[in-house]
Amino acid sequence: MKSRELAYRLLPGLKWLKGYTGQDALSDLIAGITVGLTVLPQGLAYATLAGLEPQYGLYSAFVGGIIYAFIGSCRQVTIGPTALLALMTSRHTGFGLNSGPAYAILLCLISGIVEMLMAVLRLGALVDLISLPVTVGFTSATAVIIGTSQIKGLLGLRGGSGSGFINTMKSVFLNLDKIRIGDFSLGVTAIIILLLLRKLKDLKLQNSNKFLKSFLWIVATGRNALVVLISSTIAYYTCQNKDACPLILTGKVKSGLPEFQLPQFKTTILNANGTETAQNYSAMLEELGPSMIILPIIAVLGNVAISKAFGGAGISPTRELVALSLSNICGSFFSSIPVTGSFSRSAVNHASGVRTPIGGFYTSALVLLALGLLTPYFQYIPKASLSAVIISAVIFMIEFEVIKPLWRCSRRELLPGAITFVVSLAVGVEIGLLLGVGADVAFLVYRVARPVLTVNKLSTTHGISYILIRPKHSSLYFPAIEWVRTGISKALETHGSAPVILDCSNVHDFDFTAGRGIGALNKELIRMNIPLFLLKASKEIIVILKESTNADIPTLEQPDDLETVLEQSPDYEPYLQVMVPLVANPNHGNADNEHDKKN
Amino acid sequence: MKSRELAYRLLPGLKWLKGYTGQDALSDLIAGITVGLTVLPQGLAYATLAGLEPQYGLYSAFVGGIIYAFIGSCRQVTIGPTALLALMTSRHTGFGLNSGPAYAILLCLISGIVEMLMAVLRLGALVDLISLPVTVGFTSATAVIIGTSQIKGLLGLRGGSGSGFINTMKSVFLNLDKIRIGDFSLGVTAIIILLLLRKLKDLKLQNSNKFLKSFLWIVATGRNALVVLISSTIAYYTCQNKDACPLILTGKVKSGLPEFQLPQFKTTILNANGTETAQNYSAMLEELGPSMIILPIIAVLGNVAISKAFGGAGISPTRELVALSLSNICGSFFSSIPVTGSFSRSAVNHASGVRTPIGGFYTSALVLLALGLLTPYFQYIPKASLSAVIISAVIFMIEFEVIKPLWRCSRRELLPGAITFVVSLAVGVEIGLLLGVGADVAFLVYRVARPVLTVNKLSTTHGISYILIRPKHSSLYFPAIEWVRTGISKALETHGSAPVILDCSNVHDFDFTAGRGIGALNKELIRMNIPLFLLKASKEIIVILKESTNADIPTLEQPDDLETVLEQSPDYEPYLQVMVPLVANPNHGNADNEHDKKN
Repeated sequence: MKSRELAYRLLPGLKWLKGYTGQDALSDLIAGITVGLTVLPQGLAYATLAGLEPQYGLYSAFVGGIIYAFIGSCRQVTIGPTALLALMTSRHTGFGLNSGPAYAILLCLISGIVEMLMAVLRLGALVDLISLPVTVGFTSATAVIIGTSQIKGLLGLRGGSGSGFINTMKSVFLNLDKIRIGDFSLGVTAIIILLLLRKLKDLKLQNSNKFLKSFLWIVATGRNALVVLISSTIAYYTCQNKDACPLILTGKVKSGLPEFQLPQFKTTILNANGTETAQNYSAMLEELGPSMIILPIIAVLGNVAISKAFGGAGISPTRELVALSLSNICGSFFSSIPVTGSFSRSAVNHASGVRTPIGGFYTSALVLLALGLLTPYFQYIPKASLSAVIISAVIFMIEFEVIKPLWRCSRRELLPGAITFVVSLAVGVEIGLLLGVGADVAFLVYRVARPVLTVNKLSTTHGISYILIRPKHSSLYFPAIEWVRTGISKALETHGSAPVILDCSNVHDFDFTAGRGIGALNKELIRMNIPLFLLKASKEIIVILKESTNADIPTLEQPDDLETVLEQSPDYEPYLQVMVPLVANPNHGNADNEHDKKN
Repeated sequence: MKSRELAYRLLPGLKWLKGYTGQDALSDLIAGITVGLTVLPQGLAYATLAGLEPQYGLYSAFVGGIIYAFIGSCRQVTIGPTALLALMTSRHTGFGLNSGPAYAILLCLISGIVEMLMAVLRLGALVDLISLPVTVGFTSATAVIIGTSQIKGLLGLRGGSGSGFINTMKSVFLNLDKIRIGDFSLGVTAIIILLLLRKLKDLKLQNSNKFLKSFLWIVATGRNALVVLISSTIAYYTCQNKDACPLILTGKVKSGLPEFQLPQFKTTILNANGTETAQNYSAMLEELGPSMIILPIIAVLGNVAISKAFGGAGISPTRELVALSLSNICGSFFSSIPVTGSFSRSAVNHASGVRTPIGGFYTSALVLLALGLLTPYFQYIPKASLSAVIISAVIFMIEFEVIKPLWRCSRRELLPGAITFVVSLAVGVEIGLLLGVGADVAFLVYRVARPVLTVNKLSTTHGISYILIRPKHSSLYFPAIEWVRTGISKALETHGSAPVILDCSNVHDFDFTAGRGIGALNKELIRMNIPLFLLKASKEIIVILKESTNADIPTLEQPDDLETVLEQSPDYEPYLQVMVPLVANPNHGNADNEHDKKN
């Protein structure tokens, strides 16, 4: 019994096997194969997007499913190569010779290790810092970058995919005369078919023919595989004579399973002047630089978003993180590029009726089968059709529809989103993301530093006037204290001299700097003969005030206590004499007040 | 009348002249000269600390006083060279040839420009981000660094002052056998005398002899000048024969006023291998790097702290910033190094009874006079005595006494202070300051991201149970929403199924991401047959919720409304049926509840 509990603890996926019925197995098999038919063309395409040979996409597509089946906590999640991570990987694969795979695989290993550190140090919460507008700006920008990077393939333009949005656009416009009609026609046709097939699912049939419905659903879900299959068949028959081929093909895809080997810690790159330069471990790490942190965070963000979307409250964030980490670490031994949960394939999985993460096993099996048997046929896949697969996938990542409601209800949030989008396009997605999060964090700090102050001139029931200042924020921390001091000075200028009551009823958090600030304020007010009181100050505030300043600032439980305090202590006599008559009846002259006093 | 107002607006200092009496003039004259006697030795010493020839300290000591008299808003502030800025400048003056002054003067100009930008963009508030523990850590670390950098001068060790705390300490220990007895004796004696003279002020004389009191005060206040004067006199008589001189002297100080000229935008440095390399403008800017931002912020921080300490509420932060900016910009045309308000000299100014900033004029006049007449004598100032002046000034910048109260009342604040102190010593003061502020900001964000949640299971007056969740923070922003969702899931696990009421009465601030999060939570709860209500949600929250999510989440004004809402809508019938009997009397079985219902 105990050993079984331990096994469940270490490999929580085992619980799926408890009561695993034939019906479950069939459902998982159907879903697994459907996802496999999606990941085959996507994997080939994303590897090309990452600047690598197509087989690396398949190498990345089978480890995640197996690992996740053992550890993952959400049945729909499928882990594998994604367009976003492929794009981020592509930054480090353009140095020639065999350095591309070396960098990509090392990045995969390091991402896994960083994700494990995030799990151990409970840093998974870092993704909470990425707000919705920043997420939208980031994914939209990457979608635009990925989309434009595929325009060349779609148009049949040869040459590297170019670095960054602006360079790619420039290169496309400079080479518009070199468009190849064959690739262009195939690519555009493929995109149109893919978008139409996607719509098939939404089609509401009048006479609900069950068989027709299932058929349409299968065609819609397997549309990527279908389009690639058809275009490859065309290419197979038209391109037997290579010189007459109207299409640019994928070319030889290495057959067989990847070798099981340690990621390479050294490589050789081709310098700009054509010389070969050896890169040791530290040179490689330097090249990867901030990607080693930002890529895992993006991977975690994607994975968390998917498991939240499909799994709801039953998800264990730590288990998800460990599953993701191990998928990358183990994957790197099978030449995988960085992987994470794929939103589109998880949706396919969900729609295919997956019942347990064991479905991932079948996907992995299909990928391995393809690596063993299908690779000779992959060389006939036209590049334009892979570009079409990518473009019609990322086009739905552009989420401009969120702008309108944001404009209507919370305009200031558009700024971090816009910063992320524009900087991602103009400079790079990592910098864009960092600046977007920076703008959001700056706003949070601004809110802490500049609490709204409500200022009122009020009177006690017996007519002693006072100025009541209430910070509308739950903390009074170091960045805010000078602001509060200035606010009190201004209030005294506007309302004239009167005892100042600082209402701390909202304030839960306080610090030493704020304590010193209040102490300095108190000194200043004493110099001006104005007493300062704290209203409803918590014990914590009083302790910090006592430690940070020598002054003894009196506290009140309610504004009306002001009177009692002023009358009880001889220290306050001058205030009573000076202020009560001046302030209690502001419409009367001094003489009248004298009169009032006599009564 | 109008033109006078304009003049007052542009040069607010003119107002000091209104009703400026002979008594005022005399007070300002006395204070100005006293400050001058302090700034002369300090200026020579700080220039050496900055890695420059002594005269640059004097070049930096006269422009600020004149500018500040016209624009400044606090009579005590005196602007000029300081130990802290000299230390920060010294990072850029060690490249040989004439590059030292070129870098220092360019940094002065750029600091002025950045300060002007801070004034225009209202960024002066950035200094609010530096909390007291970070300030203490920073100034203490700089004091330690400056102090150790002077140990070599004090011991008579030759050679550069070394870069950084650790290198200096190493170099001192490696050269302990080369200590020169003459310099060492003079230096230690000078420090002892300076510290004793400083104590003189605190001396309480029994018989209050007015003349003796004044004499002691003058000696105590002018102690730096006095010690330098005496040690120079000794050196003048013992060092006529240069070879027999037991002391290392300052050496020739350039006589005369500095030329009025544009700061140099190019210079030549000596490379490590001894070749001369020309540095153009952009190479110089690259070398100055982050100093161009951090030095002005430190300068502003110092100036703000002084004007707050002496001036209280009457200070205009913008005017202070403009005065500081112009002191640096104009100063750079007179070969000044970066300047800011000096705490020690402002204290001397205050103690000397200064009445208006016009006192700065007299200080400036004295400095100019010294440049014209006294420079031939400055060459006899022993370096050890200048080191003694610096050490006995910075020793009081070490503020470890703040640790104890912090430990007692708010331990977590020790961390940013300790980070600042340790990193400043080990790596550099700029990095130390940045990391300290970063730690503080991280804490602020943490507080926003992880609000305390109070969770209670309560009942309405008619016995319907509900779970009330109240975030104890005034904002519910994107970093916190997942935390709140998890909190609610946990509460449902602990307390069992019941309607969830999210109490928003504390929440003033809300954003789109949080809205989406609440929407997702609502969907999740609907799936679990649990209704969600918002209590006392502000209008802003409701608008953002409506825009960010399609769900219509009902709001309550008070928990007892729960019942009415549940009964009024047929949607809630299942909840009433399921939950009321189960929950209202948790101690009874279902049968009993049936019974209750019948009654």
